[in-house]
Amino acid sequence: MDVLIIGGSDAGISAALQARAVDPKCSVTLVVADTYPNFSICGLPFYLSGEVADWRTLAHRTRADIEAQGVELLLGHRAEQIYPSLKRVRVIDGAGQSKHLSYDRLIIGTGAEPRRPSIVGLDLPGVFVLHTMDDSFALHDHLDRKQPRRAVIVGGGYIGVEMADALIHRGLSVTLLQHGPSLLRAVDPAIGAEVALELRRHGARVITGVNIRSFETQGQSVLVRAEGGLQETADLVLVAAGVQPVSALAREAGIAVGEWGAIRVTRAMETNIADIFAAGDCVETYHQLLSRPAYLPLGTTAHKQGRVAGENAVGGKRLFEGSLGTQVVKVFDLAVAGTGLTESAALHEGYSPLVADIRVPHHKAYYPGAHELHLRLIGDLPTGKLLGGQILGHWQAEVAKRIDTFATALFHRMSVDGLMDLDLSYTPPVSSPWDPVQMVAQTWLRSARALRPSNSIS
Amino acid sequence: MDVLIIGGSDAGISAALQARAVDPKCSVTLVVADTYPNFSICGLPFYLSGEVADWRTLAHRTRADIEAQGVELLLGHRAEQIYPSLKRVRVIDGAGQSKHLSYDRLIIGTGAEPRRPSIVGLDLPGVFVLHTMDDSFALHDHLDRKQPRRAVIVGGGYIGVEMADALIHRGLSVTLLQHGPSLLRAVDPAIGAEVALELRRHGARVITGVNIRSFETQGQSVLVRAEGGLQETADLVLVAAGVQPVSALAREAGIAVGEWGAIRVTRAMETNIADIFAAGDCVETYHQLLSRPAYLPLGTTAHKQGRVAGENAVGGKRLFEGSLGTQVVKVFDLAVAGTGLTESAALHEGYSPLVADIRVPHHKAYYPGAHELHLRLIGDLPTGKLLGGQILGHWQAEVAKRIDTFATALFHRMSVDGLMDLDLSYTPPVSSPWDPVQMVAQTWLRSARALRPSNSIS
Repeated sequence: MDVLIIGGSDAGISAALQARAVDPKCSVTLVVADTYPNFSICGLPFYLSGEVADWRTLAHRTRADIEAQGVELLLGHRAEQIYPSLKRVRVIDGAGQSKHLSYDRLIIGTGAEPRRPSIVGLDLPGVFVLHTMDDSFALHDHLDRKQPRRAVIVGGGYIGVEMADALIHRGLSVTLLQHGPSLLRAVDPAIGAEVALELRRHGARVITGVNIRSFETQGQSVLVRAEGGLQETADLVLVAAGVQPVSALAREAGIAVGEWGAIRVTRAMETNIADIFAAGDCVETYHQLLSRPAYLPLGTTAHKQGRVAGENAVGGKRLFEGSLGTQVVKVFDLAVAGTGLTESAALHEGYSPLVADIRVPHHKAYYPGAHELHLRLIGDLPTGKLLGGQILGHWQAEVAKRIDTFATALFHRMSVDGLMDLDLSYTPPVSSPWDPVQMVAQTWLRSARALRPSNSIS
Repeated sequence: MDVLIIGGSDAGISAALQARAVDPKCSVTLVVADTYPNFSICGLPFYLSGEVADWRTLAHRTRADIEAQGVELLLGHRAEQIYPSLKRVRVIDGAGQSKHLSYDRLIIGTGAEPRRPSIVGLDLPGVFVLHTMDDSFALHDHLDRKQPRRAVIVGGGYIGVEMADALIHRGLSVTLLQHGPSLLRAVDPAIGAEVALELRRHGARVITGVNIRSFETQGQSVLVRAEGGLQETADLVLVAAGVQPVSALAREAGIAVGEWGAIRVTRAMETNIADIFAAGDCVETYHQLLSRPAYLPLGTTAHKQGRVAGENAVGGKRLFEGSLGTQVVKVFDLAVAGTGLTESAALHEGYSPLVADIRVPHHKAYYPGAHELHLRLIGDLPTGKLLGGQILGHWQAEVAKRIDTFATALFHRMSVDGLMDLDLSYTPPVSSPWDPVQMVAQTWLRSARALRPSNSIS
């Protein structure tokens, strides 16, 4: 069985390793457009901040590690065309030479690329995006050579927020301009507002509700102009306006794409064409809670989808169980995490969300060093179903792995009430007899009881 | 509805608060033998270490907090006899006055008391147990007045281990003598051995396989004699040999007790006598994984059982969903946590356990500050069922809340394979794209695949 994989990032590598693990007799060839297979692009902000000194350490695995698993790597090879009827892919190598690779099963993991908002001057010198290793080197080089002092970041998603932290860490003054009314779409505005506060506490300017019109060169700097007369001059502009799927190669081969331009896949990660699978940031992602596709490009999801695609390419029968959009971001001293539906997403989906919102110490207050956690729990009032959870607090207050309890509960479609039955760990220096994730459930239940006195939910 | 509750610790208070929350019209009276209702006895080691300066802060709630919830507290009242046919309880107050309290529903939360191993001299001056606030004051007083320098701790369970930490923190030299072959029964010996190492790294002597024969007064000190000639002289001996249920009051009223001397209860926390419930360290605990009773005295469990008993006492229909024995202990810089079955418990239950054992950084190694986690996953080889998980690592490496992912997975009877489908949170400073709890599952699956090449588990 010859498995050909296009793309050497999370989905492609996971697929390759799982195919080899499940069927050690299969042959796996991985076509990688650049020369950085299996790099942690989630680590780029920490390289740019200076916290990670050597970019080479960002590799999840070395080339040798991957090859030791029996995976053939074709680095610097661009896939140009897929011929489904011939079961071949035309690739071009670094020297411009074209060749055809045949496959029994093909897995497409072409990933995503930064969204380019309609702003005049997006390609001017001093204006950057961040997605590939090469983007990162270009920005790193600009930081080193030009020693910019003033940065404008366009976009208040997790990359924008992490890069604000990173550039302040490097000594720049940072202005973050966000189109929407609050930061981080994965959490409610009440949490997003605290992220903005944390950025401001560390010297950033954060402005929301900004519609940027243009970038203009002004000497060595860039002038950023927004609607309503807002102007900012920067030595560096970073546009972090989200990503979009890279799906042209698939589309041109007749593979169906969905509304976000992402490749349509079954839960077995099959495309509409026989023997062609796809996974990662280039595909529609099955949302477990909504039971329908969404576009949720996350590294964790890409790993899981790649694993499913790799296993099924060699004859497996695994289904991707779905994403809950679980994520966590570190911003200076805080971690902010969310999973499932936000309040507004829950409303949009037709639920009647009731939100509990509490601030409690992350462990028993009598033990020294307790940090305050801000927890929000979104539940459906009529059914008592858990819909989502959000936590903000000190990044060493077990925020990230507490959100995992919500995520695991959501995975099992638990009720809010059910959270109270979980046998979670406790000792005074790390938690309370009811963990904070249960305290917020308790608060939710009390509110629900007050709103529905005749109802049996307790 | 008059609800009478005997016992003012975790189970009793939880029951009282839940009864009032579910039925605000019920009357709740709580009989508390001492004058310390709702104290965190799990916090006693941190009070004795000096880390908690004021013992009053150990109260989960003040007396006023509890009374504000409409709960009547009878402090310093001992329940002497239950008359089920009369639905009355005879109590004696602090002045020795006897009175009868009637009830519609009774909840027994009499807790546990330290086990007294058959050692000669257990009541000598300088020999202590630790369970109640008064025990703690006696020990604290001894530490202050006598300024002991050499302590012997008998017992290597979590209280013994925490107290070794606490007494070293106070400047004593500590010898920990453990009857069994390794420390902490809730984890496998491979993890227990690392706990012993951590204690030794901080100056403790740890000796396992010790059968203690006697304590003898030797001047101002205590001579500890064990089989095989081992002798230790100490200024302070702490016996921490586990606890046993306090169930005599119940037994004398005709309430059935089980093999550990613990009160038999249904999953609704009903005893065999109508309108009498029981909860907490005095009862048999339904083990969720084994689907049968066990004796697992833990504060977290007592809270949950109390909540169920309180709700059902006022007409609810809740079932206690069971314990997994989830626990975490902090020992100097480490946290050690376990849930579900250990390897030997799994064997004893007739499973065919396969254990995966890995050491991985708690977050991406390229980001500064990663600590090594030691994870063990116990799964049943023929069925692929998850049986238990254990984690040891730096106490700020999210050990405790990672064990909660295992606990939540066990609660839902997941397979090891299923762990790979969980959508857990990731950013390089807190985790990896596959969280360590998934990495150990991955390792388990690889081993299982190698042992069962023809099997479809992947």
